[in-house]
Amino acid sequence: MSIRIIFLGTAGAIPTAQRSLPAVLLQRGNEQLMFDCGEAVQRQMIRAKTGFHKKLKIFLTHMHGDHVLGLPGLLQTMALMDRQKPVEVYGPVGTAHFLACLQESLQFGLTYPVEIHEVTNAGLVCNEEEYTITAEHTNHGVTSFAYAFVEKPRPGKFHPEKAKALGIRQGQAWSQLQHGETLTLKDGKTVKPEDVSGPQRKGRKIVYTGDTRPFKAFAEFAADADLVIHEATFDDALIEKAELDGHSTPSQAAEEAKSAGAKSLVLTHISARYSEPQLLLGQAKKVFANTQVAEDFLELELPLGE
Amino acid sequence: MSIRIIFLGTAGAIPTAQRSLPAVLLQRGNEQLMFDCGEAVQRQMIRAKTGFHKKLKIFLTHMHGDHVLGLPGLLQTMALMDRQKPVEVYGPVGTAHFLACLQESLQFGLTYPVEIHEVTNAGLVCNEEEYTITAEHTNHGVTSFAYAFVEKPRPGKFHPEKAKALGIRQGQAWSQLQHGETLTLKDGKTVKPEDVSGPQRKGRKIVYTGDTRPFKAFAEFAADADLVIHEATFDDALIEKAELDGHSTPSQAAEEAKSAGAKSLVLTHISARYSEPQLLLGQAKKVFANTQVAEDFLELELPLGE
Repeated sequence: MSIRIIFLGTAGAIPTAQRSLPAVLLQRGNEQLMFDCGEAVQRQMIRAKTGFHKKLKIFLTHMHGDHVLGLPGLLQTMALMDRQKPVEVYGPVGTAHFLACLQESLQFGLTYPVEIHEVTNAGLVCNEEEYTITAEHTNHGVTSFAYAFVEKPRPGKFHPEKAKALGIRQGQAWSQLQHGETLTLKDGKTVKPEDVSGPQRKGRKIVYTGDTRPFKAFAEFAADADLVIHEATFDDALIEKAELDGHSTPSQAAEEAKSAGAKSLVLTHISARYSEPQLLLGQAKKVFANTQVAEDFLELELPLGE
Repeated sequence: MSIRIIFLGTAGAIPTAQRSLPAVLLQRGNEQLMFDCGEAVQRQMIRAKTGFHKKLKIFLTHMHGDHVLGLPGLLQTMALMDRQKPVEVYGPVGTAHFLACLQESLQFGLTYPVEIHEVTNAGLVCNEEEYTITAEHTNHGVTSFAYAFVEKPRPGKFHPEKAKALGIRQGQAWSQLQHGETLTLKDGKTVKPEDVSGPQRKGRKIVYTGDTRPFKAFAEFAADADLVIHEATFDDALIEKAELDGHSTPSQAAEEAKSAGAKSLVLTHISARYSEPQLLLGQAKKVFANTQVAEDFLELELPLGE
C-alpha cells in the first residue's frame, strides 16, 4: 500500500500568494491523516482533489490560529457534502473547547460524529491495526506535540518453494501463512510463517514536528524515520529570532534529521519573507543532503519497502 | 475620491478552485470597509495587495461560518504585522462572543484595539463625516443584515466666475465657500456657498445583501443605489431549493435591483455547482440588463459623480 504525502499548506504564521497555512495530508490507501489544519485547508483539498469522504484523522500540533483555523470550515463543508464517516481529531488540551465554542457561536450542524481525543502526554496517541501514532512534546512556548506515524512490521516475504518443500500446496494454507498464522499439518507437524518466509519487513515512519526549536528528545523520537517533515521558519542568519519565537532554522532542522538517522527531510512552515527556497535549502543541505523545501501541493510517494 | 470595490471571495457556502469564501472590500481613499469576512480573506487580501494597515471597518451580515471564519486569522495576521490602528467590527448579536471565545482558545494577542459593535436593529449603524452605513434585516433563517453604504451629499460645483463677480478673490475665501462656509465680506454682505455653487451633489450608494431570500423592505432600503451586490446562490431552476435554504436566484436578485431603481447589479455568493457564470448571468439580464456575475478579484471603480 503506497503512502502519498501532500503538502496542502507550507506557510509560517502568515500566508503568502504562494503558500497557504500549515497542513500536511498523509494518504495511505483509503485513509487520510492530516497534520495541522491551517485556514483554507478545505480549499487546498479541493484544489488537490483529495476528496471529503475518506476515513480521516486530524492531528493538531498546538492551538495557535495558523495551525487550527481551517478546522471549523472543513468540518462544515464536509457536513454540507453529507459526509457520514466520523472524523477523529487529536490535539492538545483545548481542542474540545475550541470546537465547542465555535459550534456554539456558528450553530453548525454536522452529518457525522466528530470524535475528539485530547493528547495530554507524550507517547502512544492511537494504535491502529496497521500503524501507530505517537506524540512527543516539542519546544515552542505553548504545549505543542510532534507526531510520528509508524507502520507496524509486515510479515516477511513469502517463499513458495519452501512451502512446497514442506508439502504445503498453493491455496488457503499459503494465505494463512502469509497472514501470520501457524499451520498444523495432517501429520501433526506445525509450520510457522517464519519457516516459509524471510525476515519481518519494517514499516514506514514519518515524523511531523509542527512548530519547535530543536529539542533533545527528537533524535530518539524520529529515529530511523523514512521522512522527517520539520519546520524551518527562519534562515540561519535569524537563529536568534528563531530561538526567541520558538522556531528552527534550516541547519537546525537538518541537524535534527541527521541526529535521528532519518532518510529524508522536508522543510516547511516557511516565513513569508522567503519568496524563493534556495537560501533555506542551501543551509540545510550542508548538514543533511537529502533535503527539500516544501511548496504547496508538493506530493511525495513513499513506496512500500521490500 | 474614487471608490474601488474588490471582490475578495465570491463563493457560496463551499469554496471552489476559482472562488474563495464571501468577502467584499470597499476602498474609499485610505479607508477600507469589508463586507463579510470568509475563510482565507487574509490571503485574498495579500493577492489583491490591499494592505493590512489602512483604516478598516468590517461588517458581518450573519454568524454562519462561511461568512465569518476569515476574521480571526485576519486579526492575527494584522497583529503579526504590528498594526496600530483600531479595527471596527460590526455584526449581529454573537459577534463579540465569537471573537471572545476564539481569543480565549487561541490565546492571541493583538497590537491594536478591536472595537465590536453589535447590530441589534435595522437602521443607522454608523455615521461618519462623509458617509453612513445602515442595516436592514434580510430573510435568511438566522438574524442577518444587509448593509447600505451611503455617501453624504457633497457641496455643489464651485463657479469661480460667480465668486469673482461678487468681488471675492481666489484664495482662502474660495476654499471656505467650497467647504460649505458662509463668508462675511468687508462691506457686511454675506455670501453663502450656494450663491457661488451649483446644486448639492448626491453621494454614491452601494448595497450588500449577504444571504437572503427576496424581502419586502429591499426596494426602499436599496432605492437608487449605484450598485447592488446581491447574492444569487442558485439558478432559477432551483428556486424551490433557494427558498428552502434562504437564498435567491438570479431573476429574483434582478427583480430586487429593478424594484429599487438601482443603476447596476453584481451577483455573488455563487454555488459551487456553477463553474461558468453564463447561466446565472443570462437569467438575471432578462430582468435587469446592467448585471454582472462577480468573480474573485473583480474590481469595480465607482467614480465621483458630477
